[in-house]
Amino acid sequence: HRTGLPEVIYASGKTTEQVRLIAERMFNKGIDILATRATPEIYEAVKMVVPDAVYNQLARTIVYKHKEEISGKGYIAVVSAGTSDLPVAEEAVETARFLNNEVVTVYDVGVAGIHRLFNKLDLIRNARVIIVVAGMEGALASVVGGLVDKPVIGVPTSIGYGANFQGLSALLSMLNSCASGVSVVNIDNGFGAACQASLINKL
Amino acid sequence: HRTGLPEVIYASGKTTEQVRLIAERMFNKGIDILATRATPEIYEAVKMVVPDAVYNQLARTIVYKHKEEISGKGYIAVVSAGTSDLPVAEEAVETARFLNNEVVTVYDVGVAGIHRLFNKLDLIRNARVIIVVAGMEGALASVVGGLVDKPVIGVPTSIGYGANFQGLSALLSMLNSCASGVSVVNIDNGFGAACQASLINKL
Amino acid sequence: HRTGLPEVIYASGKTTEQVRLIAERMFNKGIDILATRATPEIYEAVKMVVPDAVYNQLARTIVYKHKEEISGKGYIAVVSAGTSDLPVAEEAVETARFLNNEVVTVYDVGVAGIHRLFNKLDLIRNARVIIVVAGMEGALASVVGGLVDKPVIGVPTSIGYGANFQGLSALLSMLNSCASGVSVVNIDNGFGAACQASLINKL
Amino acid sequence: HRTGLPEVIYASGKTTEQVRLIAERMFNKGIDILATRATPEIYEAVKMVVPDAVYNQLARTIVYKHKEEISGKGYIAVVSAGTSDLPVAEEAVETARFLNNEVVTVYDVGVAGIHRLFNKLDLIRNARVIIVVAGMEGALASVVGGLVDKPVIGVPTSIGYGANFQGLSALLSMLNSCASGVSVVNIDNGFGAACQASLINKL
Amino acid sequence: HRTGLPEVIYASGKTTEQVRLIAERMFNKGIDILATRATPEIYEAVKMVVPDAVYNQLARTIVYKHKEEISGKGYIAVVSAGTSDLPVAEEAVETARFLNNEVVTVYDVGVAGIHRLFNKLDLIRNARVIIVVAGMEGALASVVGGLVDKPVIGVPTSIGYGANFQGLSALLSMLNSCASGVSVVNIDNGFGAACQASLINKL
Amino acid sequence: HRTGLPEVIYASGKTTEQVRLIAERMFNKGIDILATRATPEIYEAVKMVVPDAVYNQLARTIVYKHKEEISGKGYIAVVSAGTSDLPVAEEAVETARFLNNEVVTVYDVGVAGIHRLFNKLDLIRNARVIIVVAGMEGALASVVGGLVDKPVIGVPTSIGYGANFQGLSALLSMLNSCASGVSVVNIDNGFGAACQASLINKL
Amino acid sequence: HRTGLPEVIYASGKTTEQVRLIAERMFNKGIDILATRATPEIYEAVKMVVPDAVYNQLARTIVYKHKEEISGKGYIAVVSAGTSDLPVAEEAVETARFLNNEVVTVYDVGVAGIHRLFNKLDLIRNARVIIVVAGMEGALASVVGGLVDKPVIGVPTSIGYGANFQGLSALLSMLNSCASGVSVVNIDNGFGAACQASLINKL
Amino acid sequence: HRTGLPEVIYASGKTTEQVRLIAERMFNKGIDILATRATPEIYEAVKMVVPDAVYNQLARTIVYKHKEEISGKGYIAVVSAGTSDLPVAEEAVETARFLNNEVVTVYDVGVAGIHRLFNKLDLIRNARVIIVVAGMEGALASVVGGLVDKPVIGVPTSIGYGANFQGLSALLSMLNSCASGVSVVNIDNGFGAACQASLINKL
Ligand SMILES: Nc1ncnc2c1ncn2[C@@H]1O[C@H](COP(=O)(O)O)[C@@H](O)[C@H]1O
Ligand SMILES: Nc1ncnc2c1ncn2[C@@H]1O[C@H](COP(=O)(O)O)[C@@H](O)[C@H]1O
Ligand SMILES: Nc1ncnc2c1ncn2[C@@H]1O[C@H](COP(=O)(O)O)[C@@H](O)[C@H]1O
Ligand SMILES: Nc1ncnc2c1ncn2[C@@H]1O[C@H](COP(=O)(O)O)[C@@H](O)[C@H]1O
Ligand SMILES: [Mg+2]
Ligand SMILES: [Mg+2]
Ligand SMILES: [Mg+2]
Ligand SMILES: [Mg+2]
Ligand SMILES: [Mg+2]
Ligand SMILES: [Mg+2]
Ligand SMILES: [Mg+2]
Ligand SMILES: [Mg+2]
Repeated sequence: HRTGLPEVIYASGKTTEQVRLIAERMFNKGIDILATRATPEIYEAVKMVVPDAVYNQLARTIVYKHKEEISGKGYIAVVSAGTSDLPVAEEAVETARFLNNEVVTVYDVGVAGIHRLFNKLDLIRNARVIIVVAGMEGALASVVGGLVDKPVIGVPTSIGYGANFQGLSALLSMLNSCASGVSVVNIDNGFGAACQASLINKL
Repeated sequence: HRTGLPEVIYASGKTTEQVRLIAERMFNKGIDILATRATPEIYEAVKMVVPDAVYNQLARTIVYKHKEEISGKGYIAVVSAGTSDLPVAEEAVETARFLNNEVVTVYDVGVAGIHRLFNKLDLIRNARVIIVVAGMEGALASVVGGLVDKPVIGVPTSIGYGANFQGLSALLSMLNSCASGVSVVNIDNGFGAACQASLINKL
Repeated sequence: HRTGLPEVIYASGKTTEQVRLIAERMFNKGIDILATRATPEIYEAVKMVVPDAVYNQLARTIVYKHKEEISGKGYIAVVSAGTSDLPVAEEAVETARFLNNEVVTVYDVGVAGIHRLFNKLDLIRNARVIIVVAGMEGALASVVGGLVDKPVIGVPTSIGYGANFQGLSALLSMLNSCASGVSVVNIDNGFGAACQASLINKL
Repeated sequence: HRTGLPEVIYASGKTTEQVRLIAERMFNKGIDILATRATPEIYEAVKMVVPDAVYNQLARTIVYKHKEEISGKGYIAVVSAGTSDLPVAEEAVETARFLNNEVVTVYDVGVAGIHRLFNKLDLIRNARVIIVVAGMEGALASVVGGLVDKPVIGVPTSIGYGANFQGLSALLSMLNSCASGVSVVNIDNGFGAACQASLINKL
Repeated sequence: HRTGLPEVIYASGKTTEQVRLIAERMFNKGIDILATRATPEIYEAVKMVVPDAVYNQLARTIVYKHKEEISGKGYIAVVSAGTSDLPVAEEAVETARFLNNEVVTVYDVGVAGIHRLFNKLDLIRNARVIIVVAGMEGALASVVGGLVDKPVIGVPTSIGYGANFQGLSALLSMLNSCASGVSVVNIDNGFGAACQASLINKL
Repeated sequence: HRTGLPEVIYASGKTTEQVRLIAERMFNKGIDILATRATPEIYEAVKMVVPDAVYNQLARTIVYKHKEEISGKGYIAVVSAGTSDLPVAEEAVETARFLNNEVVTVYDVGVAGIHRLFNKLDLIRNARVIIVVAGMEGALASVVGGLVDKPVIGVPTSIGYGANFQGLSALLSMLNSCASGVSVVNIDNGFGAACQASLINKL
Repeated sequence: HRTGLPEVIYASGKTTEQVRLIAERMFNKGIDILATRATPEIYEAVKMVVPDAVYNQLARTIVYKHKEEISGKGYIAVVSAGTSDLPVAEEAVETARFLNNEVVTVYDVGVAGIHRLFNKLDLIRNARVIIVVAGMEGALASVVGGLVDKPVIGVPTSIGYGANFQGLSALLSMLNSCASGVSVVNIDNGFGAACQASLINKL
Repeated sequence: HRTGLPEVIYASGKTTEQVRLIAERMFNKGIDILATRATPEIYEAVKMVVPDAVYNQLARTIVYKHKEEISGKGYIAVVSAGTSDLPVAEEAVETARFLNNEVVTVYDVGVAGIHRLFNKLDLIRNARVIIVVAGMEGALASVVGGLVDKPVIGVPTSIGYGANFQGLSALLSMLNSCASGVSVVNIDNGFGAACQASLINKL
């Protein structure tokens, strides 16, 4: 594929009917299916036409693959700070797996309890590329970036309230990271982070 | 004094002449003098009327005290991330000392090299109150806040460029800290942080 | 505890089921329970597993403590401006009490009727640390900060409309306070203010 | 005059030469002259053609009136918070006097030392209309608005740093004032506040 | 009354029950009642305890006055741009009348059809004070301010979409008005504009 | 030319030497020259290599054309509000003339003195396309847009201070214009407005 | 008509009843009807009084014309990036047709798959004026602007999430377009773009 | 090295003396030297102690390496839009070369003249990782991202004026890129982009 990335259904802003039709068309053409931001209702509709489609409720993803395979050279670590960041982390995980990557998750290692992060450091360091998902002040991306020699992709999440401004706080933090190997994708964009991580993992 | 804090000269936006006159008047009345945001030129003028005034060029402070004394119950730790944060950190140090507090500095412990922070952890943990000065993404306040059981006052600095927006990034980070014992003062306000730390240290 | 602060359930963004399970687990381990941002529905679920849990509807908190005790050295004053600021003020009160502090409330003393504040000044001045909760223009934090010699923690609230921008107005006001002993926590963060006040009160 | 307000020279962004020419033309036509935001250099040039023009260095105004007269019904009180607000306060004073109003100034009554404000309360209350000039958190407008039964016009100033955002903090504060008789003009617009106060004073 | 303005019920964020209780208490004490931002449901509840209370659905106000009287010296003109600005304009009208002012309305005179404004110019010019309510680009305040010699109070409304940012566009416009006799209140604050207009009208 | 618009030198951010070299190269190739945002110093350098180049100091443009011609079908009206908007208006004028359009200027017709605008209305209405240049609140674009049946291109200028935010106020106003035939270019972009106006004038 | 544009019903913020009444009045007077931002429910009500009114659900428009005619000189191309931009694109199409213009649509040519755009380039280049509708980063307007010699009107859409800020991203992109023939209307304002395009098409 | 990246001197905000001392110390220890954001004056000082240091005036970098070597697996393409983006692009180039990567530059391929980009497409596609540097609307990152199957790192630049807001426009564009393989670093952060690209190139 031209961009190294297959077509994906971004379900947000589409009707259940629209998503069902796209999924059906793809299924009939033998194309693997990934739908992101999909509600349970959308899943019910897709299951009608793609009975083996699998729903990850936390990630809000629907996945259907004709066969499982692993084509990346190492594994992608998806690291996240708190429970509320999980939907975004899981979107990254599902996307990365859909793109045939091995994925390791390191959850609940936010900087307020930094010893938990250190316990998992080897697992993170051995990844080929690391996705760090964090809301609130997004400090985790800088801390991880300062501990590893692998590319780190930060995903700020919209978790928080008040002066968080729907993820702006974490976004600015990550863009201003004092660790130099960190790049950033849009707020809540677990999908996009996984796309880039996958391109990197397959180099 | 009503608010527990003496009068202080905020030199920014005042003419050299104005600062010199205020300093002279205070000196003649036997009042201790602290001027913040003072240029070398202002210091030269003040030294004319208060020969024993001491200038801290990094902190941009002028201090004159009739006698040194220590009245707080413990010490205030001033922790800072990078070299560029030093002017603000030093403003906090000078202010805290002027207010008769014992001060310990822990500099250059930014989260991009977090092992340096851990090397100094005992010194920080034993303080009565901790001032954390950090620019860029301001992650240091959260990391410290998660490691100590003392009140932490964050001072975001205007260090950085681009999406830093003159310290907004660090300010939002600190306000959204995932560590619960952290409060925040204005960007670059080392003075204000030291005022509150001093009130706390004397409780 | 490492940070001087126990684990707390932040119910916002968690399902009723998730909160119930966490509460149950804590209860079984004999850990005191504080849940913030809890809906009445969540309370009903928690009550099933922790029958003696107490709900403060205004504060949106659920509290269960094995025994009441007071361990701080003085009392924390929670001062608030208007009726609409009460949920945030009460969150601070519940948190501070949960952390074993004596709390005194001084409500409805907004600066538009400043005589009411002066009537309560002694009560405020005798506190060990003061939490000021105010929305709209947040002027109360500066006014109180100028009248006392104790640390003041400002909590801007999201009360208001139009150019209030969900609390931004009060937040900026407090960060720019002309009174020097004032620090600030996130908009609506009564919980965080109480955490820091408690750390201070126990010094 | 159609709008009740004479033509005024806004010197900012005009060359010295341009201001001199406009002043000369007005002088020759017998029109009273007010120039705002005028540098000392501009004043020197204007004095060449209008020898009796008077410069207020703090206010940055040049005034020339053919005869002094008072036409308003009461006096305008110009109340300001701190020393740094004086240029804006003085611009208001000069403009109000130029427009033939009696003016009373109440300076240095910021809320961090609120007793000074109370000492002057009668003078403020007896004005026909009150201009409140304040930077930083701008709380003074709300406090005054809650103490008087006269229209209050708030002028936020750009005094401050960091999260002040060049006066945004004070502007938002005043727009969100909890006191209901307060309206607001642009940041640093002492001129505009005096124009409206003058229209009110002459009703 | 100290501030020249009676107590008013701001119903937004209060429960129906709370408003009903306050209204009942005021009614029993013989105090006139104005509630703003009141829903029809709240009105139904208030009518139970204050049968003669009158609801203005557009303005979202409930009014009960023991007797009608007019105490201002002239009339207040409430000028508005488009149909969608009417709720705010009517809030101003109801508040001004509640405060015993004569009010004249000049509606639907937005600058996109400026001839309609000119048809009503005399009515506007003869007012003692003018409230201009406008959303979108808020140009009407400047245009009116340039045509009259009376104080103009601008009320930006949150009408619009996209780059309107909930009234920010109109707010900034009015604050930057090129007409000098214009001051501004908060977005959608018809109440506040009427309070100040009433203070002015009674001078 | 592919886009209907020739190459133009945007001098801002280029060194004098760089601009001189580009101008020389174009001159030698027989290409007409327009440089925008050019300082007097740059002009002096360009004149060395293109002796007949003409400088418009207000517009900050350098122009050299091999021959004058007019190719548009009607004329472009450039309408501006105040003296300070003239640099941007003149940049539009110079650009439009460089692109072989007939241009008519209608200056100093800001809405604070709207009768001046009405005096020139026929001249504006007879244009084929109208550029409206205005700073502060930018109301002029809406007023003109409501009076004509021709496309109006608004150019917000960065004129103003305080809540003007370097032209943001005028930009938002114009984007929210209640007159429907108005589109907008970037703040201070007289050049871009003239480019589009020229494309329209030549249809 | 004075502005070259007929009266149009902007249904947003109007009740179904209000829109029905306006439509009925217009129908009875023999005026053509265009209502924008109309819900299906509003359409049902309008159909009662204007049985031949046509609803475009995607565009959210109701149209009734007494007779179809084409009066512009060429056609308007409406170019859009992705599926989610279609409602805005269709609002532009319906408006342009209502104003008697021939319209050609070029949909789904976003820059992430730029070959699709090149396939349609002739169709775009032959238009008299081009409307480009794009959300997310809004790059399409610049790309098209660099490929054609016709006026391009950009319509940023509010499509996206996170750092999109409801269309701000696309708006700023289009305002900063490196292609010089591009002007911009408000976010989601397909209506306004079509109004200006129609004025241009009829020159 | 722990993070795979050597120590680098960020000269901005350091005195000439400070940079000279650090460079000297590194030189004496045999460490390779890279200083970014260095003025010519700083270079003169460094040359005194490191005579073979090389200055890139456009990039504002000083480089001294003991020996040249290439250790990455492919080459890094640095693609940039316009002349004004060159300083940032060159900072990326110098950094990437300092980190022992082969670098290919593809300059002046902004989307306003998109044929130039297509001429260089093979060179870009064959890179192992691509850095796209663009200011104004930053559209180039999306266009490139849609044409290649390699990771793309966008660097928004602060080039532009008005609604560019010092690079915010390009930053938001890149964060909202419709092409999924794109991540972003801070505005003007050519250094950071090269750091991540180097980590990727060495995988
Ligand atoms: N969660 C997501 N966030 C951002 N982009 C997405 C997401 N999921 C899918 N996409 C992108 O959206 C494209 C489909 O958009 P559309 O044609 O509007 O359905 C896909 O090819 C992906 O590039
Ligand atoms: N300090 C000021 N702030 C705002 N507007 C002012 C000020 N001084 C004068 N003006 C206004 O600017 C107008 C003159 O503008 P100009 O024609 O650009 O010189 C005067 O008539 C006043 O309405
Ligand atoms: N629509 C309104 N907008 C702003 N302030 C209002 C409004 N209505 C009432 N108020 C103010 O709110 C006060 C009552 O606030 P509260 O005590 O929270 O009910 C009144 O005394 C008024 O000063
Ligand atoms: N979708 C739209 N976006 C912006 N303005 C619109 C839209 N539809 C109609 N309008 C304008 O709104 C006017 C009607 O506004 P109103 O009098 O409030 O109904 C019309 O004459 C149009 O100029
Ligand atoms: Mg790293
Ligand atoms: Mg802690
Ligand atoms: Mg105090
Ligand atoms: Mg009052
Ligand atoms: Mg006027
Ligand atoms: Mg028009
Ligand atoms: Mg073009
Ligand atoms: Mg790609």
